[in-house]
Amino acid sequence: MNEPLPDFAAVVAAAGRLQGRVRRTPVVHADAFDARAGRQVFFKCENLQTGGAFKLRGALNALLSLPDPARVARVATHSSGNHGNALAIAARSLHLPCTVVVPEGSSRTKVAAIEAAGARVVHCPAGFAAREAALATVLADKPAHVVHPFDDSDVIAGQGTAALELLAEPLALDSVVAPVGGGGLIGGTALAVRGLTEGCAVIGAEPASADDAFRSFTSGRRVDAGVPDTIADGLRGSIGVRNFELLRRHVDEVVTVSEAEIIAAMRIVLDDLKLLVEPSSAVAVAAVLGGRARRLGGQVGVILSGGNVDLGQCPFLSGGP
Amino acid sequence: MNEPLPDFAAVVAAAGRLQGRVRRTPVVHADAFDARAGRQVFFKCENLQTGGAFKLRGALNALLSLPDPARVARVATHSSGNHGNALAIAARSLHLPCTVVVPEGSSRTKVAAIEAAGARVVHCPAGFAAREAALATVLADKPAHVVHPFDDSDVIAGQGTAALELLAEPLALDSVVAPVGGGGLIGGTALAVRGLTEGCAVIGAEPASADDAFRSFTSGRRVDAGVPDTIADGLRGSIGVRNFELLRRHVDEVVTVSEAEIIAAMRIVLDDLKLLVEPSSAVAVAAVLGGRARRLGGQVGVILSGGNVDLGQCPFLSGGP
Repeated sequence: MNEPLPDFAAVVAAAGRLQGRVRRTPVVHADAFDARAGRQVFFKCENLQTGGAFKLRGALNALLSLPDPARVARVATHSSGNHGNALAIAARSLHLPCTVVVPEGSSRTKVAAIEAAGARVVHCPAGFAAREAALATVLADKPAHVVHPFDDSDVIAGQGTAALELLAEPLALDSVVAPVGGGGLIGGTALAVRGLTEGCAVIGAEPASADDAFRSFTSGRRVDAGVPDTIADGLRGSIGVRNFELLRRHVDEVVTVSEAEIIAAMRIVLDDLKLLVEPSSAVAVAAVLGGRARRLGGQVGVILSGGNVDLGQCPFLSGGP
Repeated sequence: MNEPLPDFAAVVAAAGRLQGRVRRTPVVHADAFDARAGRQVFFKCENLQTGGAFKLRGALNALLSLPDPARVARVATHSSGNHGNALAIAARSLHLPCTVVVPEGSSRTKVAAIEAAGARVVHCPAGFAAREAALATVLADKPAHVVHPFDDSDVIAGQGTAALELLAEPLALDSVVAPVGGGGLIGGTALAVRGLTEGCAVIGAEPASADDAFRSFTSGRRVDAGVPDTIADGLRGSIGVRNFELLRRHVDEVVTVSEAEIIAAMRIVLDDLKLLVEPSSAVAVAAVLGGRARRLGGQVGVILSGGNVDLGQCPFLSGGP
């Protein structure tokens, strides 16, 4: 671990940079959900963020943090969807061309959103190695500034601003729960929680069928996810180097949930909270409902990371009308 | 028309009474929806209100406005769902027993919510006359203070507080669109818009298959809805006496939408805004998407009146998982 890690000050600086450029999304709760969960649960609605996910925070912070933006001719990344969409939106706002490498199996809704935001989409096979290889080919053709989807200090700091806003609410949270994919959100969230609270637990939630962060956290050694098969399309990547280091240092627990729990949680959020969340977000909700995390406590904050769902492919939504 | 009508001052007074007792729901928008609608549209999310609908505003304002609350032993109403649920919640908060007469065909989710809020539910056949008759029977058994679902000045004034909050946002709305059932929401909304703006249009939206307000507005004479067959279960009632008077005086346009447009709008709100709204709310959204209202303008506010949907009965949601 030679790369410097982002710290709480970096999250605060990111919030300053992003002020007025990302939405301050609402925090909601519902008595019906509290009754189900047996605790008070407050949801930070990043599904209502521009682009339908928290990812704009990190992507935009990364571009706004460039030491010499005028020297960057174009930007590029690889992404299962939301980061690519966020980088496309961020690049467009700064008048930069953008290319996004998208692995097979990505959500069609997300890929369509990337194209709608004006970026060039390059398809590649699933799996992290294939994504990196395809991006290398893109760069060999035309050099570009690469914004990594999660293993990047500016991206991590930007993602932490969602928790910063959640913690500014007049609540006394015992824990904050966020999903873990590559670890950008949980890393930034942990920095915000550690910087602003005493004793509030940070809990990561992961699909049991993509449990690389759980195994890494438990074993103390970063392991690879391979090509996991989970409905939570945003959480198929492996946890990054910086991200694992933040996880190891600042996160209290990582819990896993089943695919059935993820789908049930999506439906419960729709029913109780009137919100559409994508499976990756439902992973954190399922962790709260499952009650397996020891540190949840009586008042819980959950980061609803995104709402980009292919309605036609959702297990409880038909293709109609 | 002998009954005094509520005025803008009554809406402002209601907002004072309701402060801290109802949620200040968020106002959201989405680029994807704006692109579809060809204008900027801002949504006041009363589907995120306590009880899942705007109705708590009116019901609670009515109870808090009682001249001598100590002399009221119990409260009662008839309601297709959301008002009954709201009155049950309001009554519980003031430690008053509550009875709700519910017509056949009401949403199961809504009836379950009324029971969950601690009220007694009495079933009756569909149609306004049957509702009134069943309520009379309930009252003959045990006297109660009746809070009418819409033809009540305190209820109308309370409903207007949602628009008051919407208009407090830093926007310059050309129009505000709200669904019309009995007319509590559109009446209160019109008072708020007239009191706070110059030249912002007030547009009512109604299902074509329950177009009593449209026909009343057009003919200048209040007509009865009969027992309309529309998926918008909250809009099956006929417009009230006070409500029609406010409609006639302060509303600029009433437009109607088809059942297919209502269902399509529900799905679009889910897709673009990540919000679950009930068919009655989707009526207002469909009116914006249909573009038939002449006074919409470039910046539109829409009151998303509620989010109480039987997921198992929704046309594009299956009963799974």
